[in-house]
Amino acid sequence: MMFDVTILGSASAIPTKKRFPSAQLINMLGHLFLVDCGEGAQMQLIRSGTGLQKIERIFISHLHGDHFFGLPGLITSMHLTGRTEPLHVYADNELPGIINPVINYSHKNLGFEIVFHELIPEKSELLFENDNLLIKSIPLQHGINTWGFIFEEKEKARNIDKGFVQKYNPDIDDIKAIKAGADFVDKTGEIHSNEKITRTPEPPRIYGYCSDTQYFDELAAQVKSVTTLYHEASFMESDKELAKERNHSTAAQAASTAYNANCKKLILGHFSARYKALDGLLQEAKHIFPNTYLAEDFCKFDII
Amino acid sequence: MMFDVTILGSASAIPTKKRFPSAQLINMLGHLFLVDCGEGAQMQLIRSGTGLQKIERIFISHLHGDHFFGLPGLITSMHLTGRTEPLHVYADNELPGIINPVINYSHKNLGFEIVFHELIPEKSELLFENDNLLIKSIPLQHGINTWGFIFEEKEKARNIDKGFVQKYNPDIDDIKAIKAGADFVDKTGEIHSNEKITRTPEPPRIYGYCSDTQYFDELAAQVKSVTTLYHEASFMESDKELAKERNHSTAAQAASTAYNANCKKLILGHFSARYKALDGLLQEAKHIFPNTYLAEDFCKFDII
Repeated sequence: MMFDVTILGSASAIPTKKRFPSAQLINMLGHLFLVDCGEGAQMQLIRSGTGLQKIERIFISHLHGDHFFGLPGLITSMHLTGRTEPLHVYADNELPGIINPVINYSHKNLGFEIVFHELIPEKSELLFENDNLLIKSIPLQHGINTWGFIFEEKEKARNIDKGFVQKYNPDIDDIKAIKAGADFVDKTGEIHSNEKITRTPEPPRIYGYCSDTQYFDELAAQVKSVTTLYHEASFMESDKELAKERNHSTAAQAASTAYNANCKKLILGHFSARYKALDGLLQEAKHIFPNTYLAEDFCKFDII
Repeated sequence: MMFDVTILGSASAIPTKKRFPSAQLINMLGHLFLVDCGEGAQMQLIRSGTGLQKIERIFISHLHGDHFFGLPGLITSMHLTGRTEPLHVYADNELPGIINPVINYSHKNLGFEIVFHELIPEKSELLFENDNLLIKSIPLQHGINTWGFIFEEKEKARNIDKGFVQKYNPDIDDIKAIKAGADFVDKTGEIHSNEKITRTPEPPRIYGYCSDTQYFDELAAQVKSVTTLYHEASFMESDKELAKERNHSTAAQAASTAYNANCKKLILGHFSARYKALDGLLQEAKHIFPNTYLAEDFCKFDII
């Protein structure tokens, strides 16, 4: 099943000619989630060929404008194009008070319900769960209430060997038991050990989104299960003091967190507009965590 | 002196892959004005190479989201990039109450003053004037308070013949008098008639912005001085009833207004996303008013 992230905005607070403010589209096992919704997110979605109505849930990391100013436009366009399905929005409890007056001035009666979920400050929570996936919040450190998000595939059942199924024709209950790890006893009484008739499934893929945050040692423990990590890298290590002062991270700090958390892949984004070229950021991160990539608007990254 | 308009957004309420919501940059005699500020206007400005700080005044036609959702982002970016000059904003008196909470949540103390000018409903007003230009509002008909804007060059002084100046070396007071139409008496007492030593200046160029509005006969009288008219053309004539129902115009109606007002040039925009091709809109307008153009994002039109 598909599990990837499309970068819709990779700039920090001030957009550039090629980079819009923060927003990402997560395509996870048939579900579409939006993480952050900077100004222009709806245009980036349209330009990437994504139907606005397919987005089920929106997760807002914090209430700096470059992470949520796109919400009124996106919600209005969802309404104007006939949405009826509820839209779940997870954010700081101040959000409705800020954006509802903007939306309501034009459209008092939306054609769909916005189900608002208040994130609890400084706490990790389970936000959503179904048979295949979990979504959790983690607290970040950015001067105001800020959360990262973890999108986690559940452990998959064991894969049963097709040849075995054809030969022994196990019933549904048997299949469930075998997938869960049980051995199988055939009609002659012979025992087929689970390890001979199944294969270990691919390990769960887990995506972690960390923007915006200053570096703190404990973050690595919070994302230790994450396999592909997106982490802000607003600054270079040479501007480390500025990063700390502004509650942001350097590329090297992002890489240290990925390294300490034993991730497989790191994506950097939220770049300050001051850097005309980003080679330096990439190199300082790769020095610590080699499998690092720079986010670009419209780039799609597989979650591994 | 330059007088042109750059289209930053030519879509109607729902953006498309190629068209952002309404916004225009007017470069008039060395001044930069923004008319409407749909979502993404700041990105379109950045992509068109315009410094955000150079914008002196913003005119908002009405409070439908596709005409003002870009204001919080633009104002925030002006602040973050160090603006200190006041920004003049002309709009419905409801605007500050809607957008201030959005801006203030992140930035309680902007580094510059927003000077808000309330537009008076259903009235034409002089909004701004300096030595060279006038800006006026005109009332439109769109279901909620809506205004068009007229950007008008003042009548220019007469151009004095350079050869005459070199030969007779008139002083500053003489030059002022000649430019205003006076004859000139040289040291020998000879009278040089004004028409022999000056040329008639180019007639004033006047830009009219009409979006959004349904068609009404009296609009042509309101824009009768306009030389280049931008007019919304959300619909084709075949969807005339829908246009009326939604308080919008057809391309043919826009062309009728330009024809009746005796304009020189017509730019159509604010196209409904329902039309995949716009040839039909252009043709029906050209049939009535031949010198018609379709707005496209990033197109620059000279005001003639």
